Parts: sequence; structure tokens; C-alpha cells
Amino acid sequence: MRTHYCGLIDEALIGQTVTLCGWADVARNLGGVCFIDLRDHEGIVQIVAEPGEAEGNADVVAIAETIGYEDCLRITGTVRRRHNPNTKIATGQVEVVATAIEVVNKAAPLPFHAHENPGEETRLRYRYLDLRRPEMQRMQRTRIRLVQALRRWLDARGFQDIETPILTKATPEGARDFLVPARMHAGEFYALPQSPQLFKQILMVAGFDRYYQIARCFRDEALRADRQLEFTQLDMEFAWVREPDVQDAVEGMMRTVFKEVIGVDLAAPFPRMTWAEAMRRYGSDKPDLRIALELVDVADLVRDSGFAVFADAANDAEGRVAALRIPGGATLSRKQIDEYAAHAAKFGARGLAYIKIDAAGEVSSPIRKFFDDAAFAALVAHVGAGNGDVVFFGAGGYNRVSDFMGALRLKAGKDFGLVEDAWKPLWVTDFPMFEFDDEAQRYVALHHPFTAPAVDDIDDLRANAKTAVSRGYDMVLNGNEIGGGSIRIHRPEMQSAVFELLGIDAEEAQAKFGFLLDALKYGAPPHGGIAFGIDRIAALMAGTESIRDVIAFPKTTGAQCLMTGAPSPIAEAQLAEVHVAVRPKG
Amino acid sequence: MRTHYCGLIDEALIGQTVTLCGWADVARNLGGVCFIDLRDHEGIVQIVAEPGEAEGNADVVAIAETIGYEDCLRITGTVRRRHNPNTKIATGQVEVVATAIEVVNKAAPLPFHAHENPGEETRLRYRYLDLRRPEMQRMQRTRIRLVQALRRWLDARGFQDIETPILTKATPEGARDFLVPARMHAGEFYALPQSPQLFKQILMVAGFDRYYQIARCFRDEALRADRQLEFTQLDMEFAWVREPDVQDAVEGMMRTVFKEVIGVDLAAPFPRMTWAEAMRRYGSDKPDLRIALELVDVADLVRDSGFAVFADAANDAEGRVAALRIPGGATLSRKQIDEYAAHAAKFGARGLAYIKIDAAGEVSSPIRKFFDDAAFAALVAHVGAGNGDVVFFGAGGYNRVSDFMGALRLKAGKDFGLVEDAWKPLWVTDFPMFEFDDEAQRYVALHHPFTAPAVDDIDDLRANAKTAVSRGYDMVLNGNEIGGGSIRIHRPEMQSAVFELLGIDAEEAQAKFGFLLDALKYGAPPHGGIAFGIDRIAALMAGTESIRDVIAFPKTTGAQCLMTGAPSPIAEAQLAEVHVAVRPKG
Repeated sequence: MRTHYCGLIDEALIGQTVTLCGWADVARNLGGVCFIDLRDHEGIVQIVAEPGEAEGNADVVAIAETIGYEDCLRITGTVRRRHNPNTKIATGQVEVVATAIEVVNKAAPLPFHAHENPGEETRLRYRYLDLRRPEMQRMQRTRIRLVQALRRWLDARGFQDIETPILTKATPEGARDFLVPARMHAGEFYALPQSPQLFKQILMVAGFDRYYQIARCFRDEALRADRQLEFTQLDMEFAWVREPDVQDAVEGMMRTVFKEVIGVDLAAPFPRMTWAEAMRRYGSDKPDLRIALELVDVADLVRDSGFAVFADAANDAEGRVAALRIPGGATLSRKQIDEYAAHAAKFGARGLAYIKIDAAGEVSSPIRKFFDDAAFAALVAHVGAGNGDVVFFGAGGYNRVSDFMGALRLKAGKDFGLVEDAWKPLWVTDFPMFEFDDEAQRYVALHHPFTAPAVDDIDDLRANAKTAVSRGYDMVLNGNEIGGGSIRIHRPEMQSAVFELLGIDAEEAQAKFGFLLDALKYGAPPHGGIAFGIDRIAALMAGTESIRDVIAFPKTTGAQCLMTGAPSPIAEAQLAEVHVAVRPKG
Repeated sequence: MRTHYCGLIDEALIGQTVTLCGWADVARNLGGVCFIDLRDHEGIVQIVAEPGEAEGNADVVAIAETIGYEDCLRITGTVRRRHNPNTKIATGQVEVVATAIEVVNKAAPLPFHAHENPGEETRLRYRYLDLRRPEMQRMQRTRIRLVQALRRWLDARGFQDIETPILTKATPEGARDFLVPARMHAGEFYALPQSPQLFKQILMVAGFDRYYQIARCFRDEALRADRQLEFTQLDMEFAWVREPDVQDAVEGMMRTVFKEVIGVDLAAPFPRMTWAEAMRRYGSDKPDLRIALELVDVADLVRDSGFAVFADAANDAEGRVAALRIPGGATLSRKQIDEYAAHAAKFGARGLAYIKIDAAGEVSSPIRKFFDDAAFAALVAHVGAGNGDVVFFGAGGYNRVSDFMGALRLKAGKDFGLVEDAWKPLWVTDFPMFEFDDEAQRYVALHHPFTAPAVDDIDDLRANAKTAVSRGYDMVLNGNEIGGGSIRIHRPEMQSAVFELLGIDAEEAQAKFGFLLDALKYGAPPHGGIAFGIDRIAALMAGTESIRDVIAFPKTTGAQCLMTGAPSPIAEAQLAEVHVAVRPKG
């Protein structure tokens, strides 16, 4: 239907006849001459319909006068040099003098114009109009180029792209499983996979050696700004490997794709940090290294202070007293400090002690009174506070203090413009194998129950479960966990022992994961892998906060598709065919 | 963990020390010398553990003596030339003399050996063992290479790989929809997509111009040998196109990938045939052109015969009397002819008339008596029957006769070895727009309700719905419909008119497809596309009848995954969370 793309018309085509197809971005009539900005996926070119002697010319102008926003047009004309070049567009040196205009499909008056950005509800309802905006096109295309670059890298290295099932087995108690009733098996259900974890391990047992998949995964949970019910992972697994084999490979992959897609050079090699160090220095297992601020432990300096909150935590083997110095933070008002306290409270703080030293060296601090001069001076010196600074303190259980002090660090970084404009990747390693769930009074897996412990000896693991370290690793970029993986358990006895430590008895293990335990019995090689969050990485590359901008048809935080109206009620007869009924409320 | 792959050890490495990882394919002890065939994804190499003077050598032999089938091993040794080369394997000129053997993971006694092919149930239950068989590896890798070749072609031509939702809107009365209860919306459901059809059309409206996706699709129906609950399509859509734009492009794509993946040159260009011609000559809308047999219409010759079955059909404007000559078919016994009749009956035949002419020219035929000599001779001459042939006849409604005579043609082709060893692609075009559903007493869409009619005029379509032809096209290869597509309706009035002809009133259309009708209103370009069945194409390329062989984790015809045990019953508490209950039987 066309000879060229609108956005690619250039001076080399001057004098030639072209046929173009696209949308009327803008149409205007200036003293009898009509100008149409014709847009396609490559860009915009100016069309001119002007009165003249040529046959049919009056028709062309007459049609041009009727053109409205977003009409679909097919236009034939001659390329000529513009009198007034438009340097803002790539085709700005030329224009096309129309000899024929066909209105292929007239557009009704639009709910909003493609150059506007109405509220997100409207954007999602009319997603097809929103996606026409150049900014949305750019973000979608960034994602597409990311996936292409990843596949190029993987295909060139012999990774096998293998599809795993979407209709799979439900995990008993799988609180986040989506369930799918089975028409052929009344009363039974499939589940949508939260990840292809077990299938990729099975593929290693099956001898595929190197696997990847751009895999759709599903998690039925209340949506947050950065979560969707369905999301996309680059899922990878390697046989016959140890940690560096996986880490070095995917680190190189990330460097390649960041360079290819957005021209960014990531550090080589990525820094590495244990989980313990990340928690200690940054109060986070996904530290944002663009912010130079660090937590400082002060337990030794407050152990004997009169402030019980500090002294108790300092004297508790599982406690922590940490300080965060914010250079220039003394400008914070009392009200602003209260806001910091409220922010910390969201992450579990019960209060927020501070020391403020104004430009003149004047100290204001609710905890000053608990220290004698020498002890206070030592504390100030230890955290490196000087005139103009504020220092926040947190005291309590180790993980809780780390969490809220880490959250304060991020807030301070943003508030004080301390976030470096840079790309700061790192590896976080040596995660705890287990976390003790106080509510359930049992261990839960910090990664997942298939992650190998650092020790090979089962008795050793049993004896030291509380402090056991796993062979898990996360790739972190600018405060986002963009990839998480581990070396897996490949010996059935170890897998059984870990299930047992997690409170899963042999019968339950067989019911849930019998096929995995079987597979490990019949010659399972050592293996490990990683999964990357494509939506998040694409959002980072596209420079947007919201992953919804890099998903063509996202759902709202209310789990709805506003365009199609999913989910929706279903007629009884259709439900009966799959053997389910809606459960009465209450 | 390794320096080389087993299957790639060659003479260039003689004298070098290598470390290999893999499975013990076979292990045997010949007079104190142990031989292990070590296998990885690249192939097999022979390992030798022999008594000797070197330190640790006795250990190596002792370990080698304990090796069983499928043990996971890590072996270091020196490459040397074999005394007795094995020409059956790529590494057959060399062997590796082990200096260290590590049993990385011992395998339990296997349910079956990797060289065996037990029943399909066992294969599917222990899929990880089945997939280790070189033949299964080859078939899976054929599929992987197919998808890679397709992506290479598409990416190089600016097709945008865009993901569309898996959790989407249920179609009211969508008898084949999988339903997914929504946790956040009690009583509402998502559905899994039968195809991304509407989303890809929306993407064209959104200005993406060229789209593709290797898309998982879902159809909840009783499984046949060649169907799965979930299947994979190469889904494509083009904006601003007419039929040849789509057809020429994807035809070139198929030629490229067949050449790249299995070295086959497909015809250029593919033959094209209307639906009417395909039904007339081959009794099928997906004719297998490897079989030279064709149907011959004989209505004109039997119109006045005394055989009412023939005469009635011949005199009915919607009837058909067709003949199929099978050269050499006179060898068929009475019992075999009965089998042909039974086969035809499965496809709707109520009887099967025939004429058999033996080698001596003797005629046996239950319909001989209905014709005088001249009429009979004319009939025999018209179908070209000679000594040694059999001719089958079908009479009745046009489509029914075409169906069962087409089925006989395929059976005869196979039975008489008349299937050429070749790749025979073609396009089938000009499908009827509608089919009249006798049961529902209304029109149904032959492709789908978004397919454009050949006529642009709505009144014309309404007036001639019965004979209207669509702008649909199928790509057929060796009797398989491997791709189906169409130019779509892009004008909202035409879409509404087609819905109306299909008995979908305005209210229902709005409820089901309101977002599509809206999208067509706001500047929808002409567009069209196609979808290819990846599972089927991979099976054809891999040379297997069953698509299960090219799916890593397929379900049975009973819709079950024998490895994981999906689907499975779900506890009441978990069902309550998603607001459904199992419906009592009856």
C-alpha cells in the first residue's frame, strides 16, 4: 500500500513520487493551503495540499480540508525541499506535495489527543491510543530491543530456549497460585507457574546442559506499584557449574545488553558483597550504591549509656544500634525530622533518635542527656558528624534496625540529591539459608527450598541451621534486585534434609515434590541458575519508574485490565462445564 | 568443572589432559580394564581405567568398577589414540585414560534404560530420563532451531516481538476457554487466551506496524493425537497491507527456515488454490499434494441413472457425486473394500459404491446394474479407470461427499505407497465467509468473526452472505494446515455488520468485543496477519507424527501431566481464597 515510511523521507528523495500511509497527527489550513503531519512508526513528515492547475488538484485540497486527528490516510505525492525547514523532526528538510489523498479510515473524535497524557485510568482504557504516543512507543521498543539483545547473546552461546508448561501442578498451600479448573477432571485444578523453577532443574537432569526461556510467570497477590499478576522472567539454568560459572556468564551478558540497548558501560567486574556486609553497611539486601551514605554500628559506644533503648539493643547478641549521618542534614526542620521518623516507622522503627549539629556547632538531640561529654564526643566522632550534619539512630533487633535505617538512607539520598547519576550493579552473596518465622515458629527458606547450602554435610547443616549460609546470589542494580539465583541441591538426601528442616515431612515432600526427588535420584548433575526480571530491567533502561510503561497491556494495581474488562463474571452454564461454582460470600 | 565436552574430544587433543563431566552411558569391565562411555549433550567418548604404575591408579580402577548406568561422573584423564577406532561415534578415533574419577551423583537403578523406548506412559512419567535419549534430544533441538530461525528472520525485518496477556477476558459462551478465578474480585474470572487475535489487532491500531510473538495459546477441549491443551503459535500481524504482502513475506520466511533448519528447499512460489478448487480436486481444505490422486466429478454422467442415490445428489444444486480412481486398487479384497467403506463412514458416508476392474478387464461393481452399457462405459472412461483399478464413488451433500472422499484419498495414498517423499506446500485461499450451522440455524464464521469479506460493500455482503468469500488464507504443507490467517476487518461498520450476520446483536457485540469496536473507530489501519502452529511444524521437521515429541513436557490425551501429577485436587481453604467451590456432581 505504500512505497516509503513517513519518518524516513529525506532529501535523497526530492523530486520522486512516494506513497505513504499513516495517521493525521495534525492537520491545519493556512489560507487555502492544507498541511498534514502524517505519522507512522518511523516518524512524521509534512504533507502539503495546495491549490494548483494539475488535474484532480481541487479534489486533493477538498479532501485535505476534511481531515481530522488520527484519520488513517494513504497519500501519494512528490517530495520537495521545504521553504522553512523544521529542525525538530528528522524529515524537516522536505515535504510531500499531495497528488492524491485517500481517507482509508476516518477516526471518531478522540477521548484524548495522542500528544496529551491524561490520567492512567484513561490511558489504560484506551491503551491503543496511549501506545501511539512516541514516548510509549520508545519505551515498548526499548523492552523489545532488550529481549532481542538477550536472545542474541544466549543463542550465540548454546543456551537452549525451551518452553515449559503454563498449565501445571498446584502447590499445596500455594497461597499465590492461580488455579485453573480442569474440564476433563471434575474437582481437579491446574495451577499457573510462579516460575519454571522445577522444570528447569528437570531439564538439567534431562541433559540439556544450558537452558533459557523468556518465561511468563504468575503470582496472585495484591499488586504493588512494581508488581503485576503476570510478569516476565529471563529464566536460565546451567548444568555442571559452580557459582562463578553462572555469575561470570550472566554478568558478561548484562554488560553486553546494557551497552547494546542503551549504550551504557557497566562496571567490569561487578562488585561483590556478602548479605551480611550489605545489611551492615546499607541496611538492605539490594543496596543502592549510587548513594554514598553508609550505616555505622555504634553498639560499642552506647552499651553503657543511660538510654535503655540503646543499651538493651547493644547488649543483645541479636540486637543492633546503627547510625546514619546525613551531611548537610541539619537543615531539616523539626517537622521534617518527624517525617523521617514516620518513614522509619513504616519499616518497623518504634522511634528515631537523632543528633543535629547546626552550622555553628550547636547540638540539638533528645538523646544528648543520656551521655556524658566524653561519651557523646566519642559517639559524634565515631559517626564522623560535623557542623551542619544530622545523625539518625536506630536500635532494636538486627534485621529490623537494618531495614528501617536502610529505608532512611534511601530517603535521605533522594531528599538531599545524593543519588549519583550512574549505573551501579553488584552481586549480593552468602545469604542466610533459613529465616526463622516467629509466627509459624519454624524455618522458612530465604531463597527457595531448592537452593543448596554452602556446606555439603547434612549433619553439619542440621546442627547449624540457624547460621547456615546458602549458595544463593542476587544481581542488584541501583537498588533493584534485577536477578536472583543459586546453585541448587542436586543430591536427593540433601533435598530431603532441607525439606525436613523447613518442616515439610517425607509424606508431604513426596506429595509436593516427589517428581523432583525422583529426578535427583536418577543421575542429577550439579546445576544452578538465575532468573532476571525483564519488566524491571526494561523499566530501568527506559528510564521509567513504572513497569506498566514497558508492558503492552498491563493490569491495574486492582488486578484489572481496563481495556478488555477482565476479570468478569461468568455464566452458570459455563462454570458448570468446568465443575466449579462461585462460593457464597461469608 | 570441565575443560571440554565429551562429544567434542578429537585427535587434535591427543596427549592433552582434559576434565569431562557427564553420565555413564555404559560401563564394563574387560579383564581388569574398565571402559566407560561418558555422555554429555555433545556426544559420547570412551574412558579407560586401567591398572598401572601411576599414583592413585588403583583408586581409579576401583572407582570405575563401581560405576552404574547414568551415574554422574567427573573424570580427568589424558587423550590418546584408540587401538580399535569406533567409526559409529564422532570421537571414535580417541579415548581418555582416566587419572581421576569423581562420582558426583550416584544414580539409583533406573525404571528403564536410556537406550530403550518403553510405553508412552512410562516415558512421560520419567520425562527427564526419556529426554536424555539422543533421538529425543535431536527432536527437541530441531524445535529450538526452528524458533531461532524464525526469530532471526523476523527480527531482521523489523517485526516487533510484543508480549500479550495470558490472564485476559473470558468470551461469553467461550466453550473452550480455560477460566481462572480472581482472588481480588470474588465471583469473577480471567480466561486464558485461545490466541492473541484481538490484542494483535489492537497493536496495529496502536501503530506498531509489524508484530510477532511466539505465543502460548490455550484451548480446553478433548485432546486428539495432535492437540494439546496449551500450544505454541508464531503469531504475526502487519498494518497497511493486502493479501500478497502477508503471503509473500511469510512464504519467504518459511523457505528460509526450512532451508536453515533441515536443509529443504520449498517451492518458490508456493502453488495457490482456492478453497473451492481444493474441495473439488482433493476433498479437503488442506490437501496433501504429495498424493497425485484426485477426485473427479461425475454428476453429469449419473444424473439419469437408475441409482437414486447418485441421481438425487446429481440433480441437487448443493449435491455432489464424486469418484476416486485408485490405480492398481483392484487388488483390494472384498474385506478391504469394506474397510474403506467403514473409513468413509467415519467421515459421514452412508455407503460406498465402487467399480473394480481386474487385470483381465472383468468388472465387479454393485452399481453396474443401474447403467446401460454405453452410460457405464462413459463413466469408466470419464474417471480414466483401466484394468487393475478400483474406483470409489460418493454421493450426497457437497461438503460431506468431499470430506469422506478426501479421507479415502489419503487412506489410498498411504495404503498403496502413493505418498511422494517430498515437501509440498501450497496456499488455500478464497474461503467461504460463513458456514450455515444446521443445528443452530444460523451462520458461523469459517475463520473467525474478524476476517474481512472480499466485498467492501456492506449491503452486498448482507445480500450474498451465503456465497460470500472471505479474505482468509491458509498455508498447507503435506496435508497439514500449518498456518492460517486473513486480512481483518478494519472498519467498525463492517465489523458490526458481520457480527449481526453471525447472530450477535449490538448489545452482545458491545459486551464481548466493545473494546475492539472502539479501537476500530479511532483510526484503525487496514491490517492482516497469520498464525503458524509451531508444534506441528517442528514435528514435521523432526519427522515425527506426534507433537508430543517436540514439546518438552507435554500432557497426555487425557489432559494430564504424568510427571508432576497435574491436574490435582485442591484443599477447600485454598479454593475459598479464590471464591470458588467444586460443584457437586449431577
